[in-house]
Amino acid sequence: MFEKVLIANRGEIALRIHRACREMGIQTVAVHSTADADAMHVRLADEAVCIGPASARESYLNIPAILTAATITGADAIHPGIGFMSENAQFAQMVEEHGFTFIGPTPEHIRIMGDKVTAKKTVLELGLPVVPGSSGPVDTLEEAVEVAERTGYPVLIKAAAGGGGKGMKVAYSADQLREAYQLARGEARAAFGNDQVYMERYLSKPRHIEIQLLGDMHGNAVHFGERDCSIQRRHQKVIEEAPSPALNAAQRQFIGDLAARTTAQLGYRGVGTMEFLFEDGEFFFIEMNTRLQVEHTITEMITSIDLVREQIRVATGAPLGYSQEDIRFHGHAIECRVNAEHPETFMPSPGKIDGYHAPGGLGVRVDSALYDGYRVPPHYDSLIAKLVVHGTTRNECMMRLRRALEEFVIGGVDTSLPLHRRIIAEANFINGDYDIHWLEQMMKLR
Amino acid sequence: MFEKVLIANRGEIALRIHRACREMGIQTVAVHSTADADAMHVRLADEAVCIGPASARESYLNIPAILTAATITGADAIHPGIGFMSENAQFAQMVEEHGFTFIGPTPEHIRIMGDKVTAKKTVLELGLPVVPGSSGPVDTLEEAVEVAERTGYPVLIKAAAGGGGKGMKVAYSADQLREAYQLARGEARAAFGNDQVYMERYLSKPRHIEIQLLGDMHGNAVHFGERDCSIQRRHQKVIEEAPSPALNAAQRQFIGDLAARTTAQLGYRGVGTMEFLFEDGEFFFIEMNTRLQVEHTITEMITSIDLVREQIRVATGAPLGYSQEDIRFHGHAIECRVNAEHPETFMPSPGKIDGYHAPGGLGVRVDSALYDGYRVPPHYDSLIAKLVVHGTTRNECMMRLRRALEEFVIGGVDTSLPLHRRIIAEANFINGDYDIHWLEQMMKLR
Repeated sequence: MFEKVLIANRGEIALRIHRACREMGIQTVAVHSTADADAMHVRLADEAVCIGPASARESYLNIPAILTAATITGADAIHPGIGFMSENAQFAQMVEEHGFTFIGPTPEHIRIMGDKVTAKKTVLELGLPVVPGSSGPVDTLEEAVEVAERTGYPVLIKAAAGGGGKGMKVAYSADQLREAYQLARGEARAAFGNDQVYMERYLSKPRHIEIQLLGDMHGNAVHFGERDCSIQRRHQKVIEEAPSPALNAAQRQFIGDLAARTTAQLGYRGVGTMEFLFEDGEFFFIEMNTRLQVEHTITEMITSIDLVREQIRVATGAPLGYSQEDIRFHGHAIECRVNAEHPETFMPSPGKIDGYHAPGGLGVRVDSALYDGYRVPPHYDSLIAKLVVHGTTRNECMMRLRRALEEFVIGGVDTSLPLHRRIIAEANFINGDYDIHWLEQMMKLR
Repeated sequence: MFEKVLIANRGEIALRIHRACREMGIQTVAVHSTADADAMHVRLADEAVCIGPASARESYLNIPAILTAATITGADAIHPGIGFMSENAQFAQMVEEHGFTFIGPTPEHIRIMGDKVTAKKTVLELGLPVVPGSSGPVDTLEEAVEVAERTGYPVLIKAAAGGGGKGMKVAYSADQLREAYQLARGEARAAFGNDQVYMERYLSKPRHIEIQLLGDMHGNAVHFGERDCSIQRRHQKVIEEAPSPALNAAQRQFIGDLAARTTAQLGYRGVGTMEFLFEDGEFFFIEMNTRLQVEHTITEMITSIDLVREQIRVATGAPLGYSQEDIRFHGHAIECRVNAEHPETFMPSPGKIDGYHAPGGLGVRVDSALYDGYRVPPHYDSLIAKLVVHGTTRNECMMRLRRALEEFVIGGVDTSLPLHRRIIAEANFINGDYDIHWLEQMMKLR
């Protein structure tokens, strides 16, 4: 087992990883920018090293500074958290080359899954269903028209290196395709320095269903059930729930087993998530995230399994030690991502927290590094708290979520709490009747 | 179902009850003294009524003021919480006479169980084992000597109306008995205005095991397993855990079934707890608390059942709707009672909270009405937070508790957090090897 882990991240996720380490008896090293000197993860860690100025590029993305911090503190392993360096294959490789353990998959797996075209090709060969579309990059408009005719309209054009909705366009006809194709390539070039795009059939009312996976270094892999992350705005998840209200038991077992089998075939180690679109009873693989995800918390609530602990454990080379049948599911969980941003304009709202009361009681979990008087810096992601609620049934979970949102007070900055209160009052949400477009449509109606 | 419930209490338990109500869609009325105008339960309730000055006698114990508040707000029912009016049969009766529902047992059950002599006699007739001792009050020293010779020394002398350790004395010989008997009567008279005492065999290393019970108005009763509350100081519980590390499966089932059967035979409605001493494989009934208990939280954590909701539900006349076999247990839970008091001298420490960070994450529940800037008033019980931790195993639970205690910050007042950190580091606690005297002995050794 590791004696000391360096956490190469900040905010609630750094605190989350610190907690898992402490519960395993592992010492922690926090790294931080000058803007985060007073942050909770810095205060709670056994040691803390300042790795640069506020700009993430000079601190949390600064590979030499992170490796130096690991060297001077004598850390055994580095946990990259979520975002920042967590899906950077070069970082993973340099961590290992410098003699530290990278708590995550191999650089090769990060590389394969980091390129969407390669990723789809890889899992397709292993038998995962994908959305019908181009078999690789679509390099000319003529080819684009051909692909669209084969898959049928509407079609989606997507950046190969993309994420977060950049470089994504939908075309409902050949006319629209001409414009959309050029726009998508232009956006991809600007955002990622790579204008390769691929194309696929556009699903009109899909749900986003993802499977939480864990593999060890001995060829074993299990799944922890699915999460429904269809409540999205601009491809950013807002509310997630597990299990999905849209799946029946047979669909649940089918996709869980398939994803776990594929993970084992890949020889994948660590936690990972396969994301699917789900429409009319069919699943279509969209991507695999080779890291912990923000919404891992809801899976933990319905399995009682600490996924960060499992991630660390398999990184030491330990075998899983249990099989699929040992993983039991109980109840229902929902997570609300609370951001420091205006609930209608979505403008970021950094500033000093003035008044803080987190909800508590049975079935309520709050993952947050906030405290009264803390200053939310303007430099990073706006996620400031995750409200995670568990109930024995979906209905109990929703009633609990409603009261937890009622009593959550975060003063001094704008937050998305009012948006969450609005969403959970909607009949579509209450009935579990929503797809990935629902939230944006709902917001336009008001 | 009730539309509006008045919560005749304060602090974390008022907030706890508010939460259950809100999750059931019930409106809440807070009552408060002038000292509690800024309290969290007042802020969160739908309505709030000031019922008197800081002194509890003039506010939280002021029956006419509470009934008036219920009348003017149009409440359907009154929840008495814990302490204050929760075991006052006269209050329960007046609540019902004024047309409100008392969320608790009948006045008659409160009366029977409120007098320890009557309580023991009642349950003895129904087949519960009790500590051998006097069959009723011991009114003379001669009788005391006779009883002691029959049960054998050491003997315990206890106030009939007592609680909290007042009017309790142990005698190891006839000589000691003479002095202890007079002292116990004098203390009982001073504390309760009633100098009746009873006597029983003194157990040298017992554990405190209690069974959580719930009965409805239709003759049904179930138990929710046991709690081990042996970590006590001056008869006040400090840390509780469920299940007890001292019971085997057969003992667990025996006492749970026996207590549930007795509850049904009593025709008891609402939540209640039967407390037992446990030594050398034998259980001895000591008392029944006819109300919610502080430590109900750990039972909720291992059953996922909201006991306050169940209490409210059966108070409406609803049948239980499930049977003993439907109640499933999972994992282990521990509660630490965090008091505003010096961790070594136990002097109360009221004052303004300056710096507050509650632990969070998987398996961690905090029930507290604290917030940064809140002023802990000097007038009431010193309990300010309950830290409740769940794990799939006792070991996981303890590791999680350790890290949760590490990150719990309550500035501005002294708290018992350092005491908890000290207790959980002790080998006896880690091994589950402790009795009701262990904590006091441990503290003397240092």
